[in-house]
Amino acid sequence: MRFPTVTAPDAQAAAAARARQNLLTKPAGALGRLEDLSVWVASCQGQCPPQQFERVRIVVFAGDHGVTRARVSAYPPEVTAQMVANIESGGAAINALAAVGDASVRVVDMAVDNETNAVSAVYKVRRGSGDIALEDALSTEQTLAAVEAGRRIADEEVDGGADLLIPGDMGIGNTTVATTLVASLTGAEPVAAVGHGTGIDDAGWARKTAAVRDALFRSRSQRSDPLGLLRCCGGADLAALAGFCAQAAVRRTPVLLDGLASTAAALVADQLAPGARAWWQAGHRSPEPAHALACTALGLEPILDLRMRLGEGSGAAVALPVLRAAVATLASMATFSEAGISGPADRAGQ
Amino acid sequence: MRFPTVTAPDAQAAAAARARQNLLTKPAGALGRLEDLSVWVASCQGQCPPQQFERVRIVVFAGDHGVTRARVSAYPPEVTAQMVANIESGGAAINALAAVGDASVRVVDMAVDNETNAVSAVYKVRRGSGDIALEDALSTEQTLAAVEAGRRIADEEVDGGADLLIPGDMGIGNTTVATTLVASLTGAEPVAAVGHGTGIDDAGWARKTAAVRDALFRSRSQRSDPLGLLRCCGGADLAALAGFCAQAAVRRTPVLLDGLASTAAALVADQLAPGARAWWQAGHRSPEPAHALACTALGLEPILDLRMRLGEGSGAAVALPVLRAAVATLASMATFSEAGISGPADRAGQ
Repeated sequence: MRFPTVTAPDAQAAAAARARQNLLTKPAGALGRLEDLSVWVASCQGQCPPQQFERVRIVVFAGDHGVTRARVSAYPPEVTAQMVANIESGGAAINALAAVGDASVRVVDMAVDNETNAVSAVYKVRRGSGDIALEDALSTEQTLAAVEAGRRIADEEVDGGADLLIPGDMGIGNTTVATTLVASLTGAEPVAAVGHGTGIDDAGWARKTAAVRDALFRSRSQRSDPLGLLRCCGGADLAALAGFCAQAAVRRTPVLLDGLASTAAALVADQLAPGARAWWQAGHRSPEPAHALACTALGLEPILDLRMRLGEGSGAAVALPVLRAAVATLASMATFSEAGISGPADRAGQ
Repeated sequence: MRFPTVTAPDAQAAAAARARQNLLTKPAGALGRLEDLSVWVASCQGQCPPQQFERVRIVVFAGDHGVTRARVSAYPPEVTAQMVANIESGGAAINALAAVGDASVRVVDMAVDNETNAVSAVYKVRRGSGDIALEDALSTEQTLAAVEAGRRIADEEVDGGADLLIPGDMGIGNTTVATTLVASLTGAEPVAAVGHGTGIDDAGWARKTAAVRDALFRSRSQRSDPLGLLRCCGGADLAALAGFCAQAAVRRTPVLLDGLASTAAALVADQLAPGARAWWQAGHRSPEPAHALACTALGLEPILDLRMRLGEGSGAAVALPVLRAAVATLASMATFSEAGISGPADRAGQ
């Protein structure tokens, strides 16, 4: 499987956006990070001013993980299927947060260890990925099918008019798998990468760290092979997330990453489709140490830091209005000359 | 002038909100800061779940400052009046950002050194406040009139249905005045409190620091008299902001503070109406050192840190959707029992 070459966002639109920010009725640079984000959106859209996002899609990739047998999570695995149903019926955090940001939510069952409805399960590759501490997460065919599913879902969304994509995750045990992927690709020690996920105690943290250590040992020959890594110590949900993030970049569609799971998958995706990272922003800072490692490796600075650790795309959904605010400044503020306003004193004195 | 006693937000509603957050379909605490904010909104509204804000009003208090004669700002003073007109015609940053957050904007001329339209100027007390490095900003009567104006404006807005207020500011030189108020009330040295405002150079920073030092010397006997402090080294816009923030608390209406000007005024307001701080949140972190000092003194932790330094209420406006997101989780997420979802493994095993 090969992804087409990723082309860079439009440098001319970026330059025009940077220049326009300096003409708007505010001190130069006074909008801080919003200015950088507005320039990025303009470069992704290839136009200045950019237009406000009209169809933001949050796609939640769900899957179970055999590694939960090692008791690495505070929650039992049946919660994954229950939460898929909760998202489908609109009761989850991501539904509430999507509504505030004017986004819509789709949930995809890639490897839930239970029956889910047929629409969600159309790309399902198996029931539960393998226990990465002991065995491969997926077969080679399943790995390819899962990455291809993520790719197709990105295509479906972009073809359906999505102008911003948010990858989300739902799966008990998925921070263990995501941490393994990040540790493998950044060379971090397990103790420096493993966090407390949805709320495990210290004994649980020790079990989780041992599982990550074992999975890293099993996958040590796959570090430079992103598909091999997903097969050996990933999972169908993570593989689909990676395909989704890579294909969004191929399709020149901006992505707002969420927390550890989506950012770990993005780190793999940037290997699958080099340069894809230019199409992504980090929505929020997760308290998981591996998330910070992945952001640093990708050169991304999280927009928000609200101590959220929920997944589902929730942190990115809360960051979405900040991105909308950035677009709004460039799209609708008056320039100094339009408003007949004096510039800085030294300029006005010329 | 005395403000009525400020009553505390509703502790029972806060307890109910905290309890409800633990029943929602997500790991306990996983929404991080959003949970704290949702509890605060519930306590301000006196109900759990809280309802989404229906009428958010941003009130921008505009005024000029004689201290700009000391060249403490990068911009000439005529910009204040020009920007008031720009806000009125919808071309300023605050207009673009308010639209994203579904808020509306009102601008009030308290002491602009120019003619503005009659509606904005209905509470105007003078043209330009005095140069605080050399003379009092206001007379005693003007101080009382300005605080009273802010108070009346808060009443007008609350009576008009506002359920969240955002104080904004517009005035060349106002960070010099706001910094003086903060330094006076926190005991900070001028060099530790003075920042670069809208973008002055090092020589400008030195002039600004000297002006703050001189104003602090002039006002040294007023530290424990908030009205005396506003008269001596405040200004009509800052005084009105203080009255506005204090009266919002009297009227049990939550306030999302912006950057240095509104937070400095809030610090004075908490002296005018002790306990008012419980009704406020800090929308964003300003790069101005005095803003951090004021937040620490008020016990407030900014929601966003986007390196914004614009004023107008802009940082609070960008934080508004985060507050809406917090409300949305408590108001619309399903509970574990509603969704039929298993709790943490240790609980499920009981």
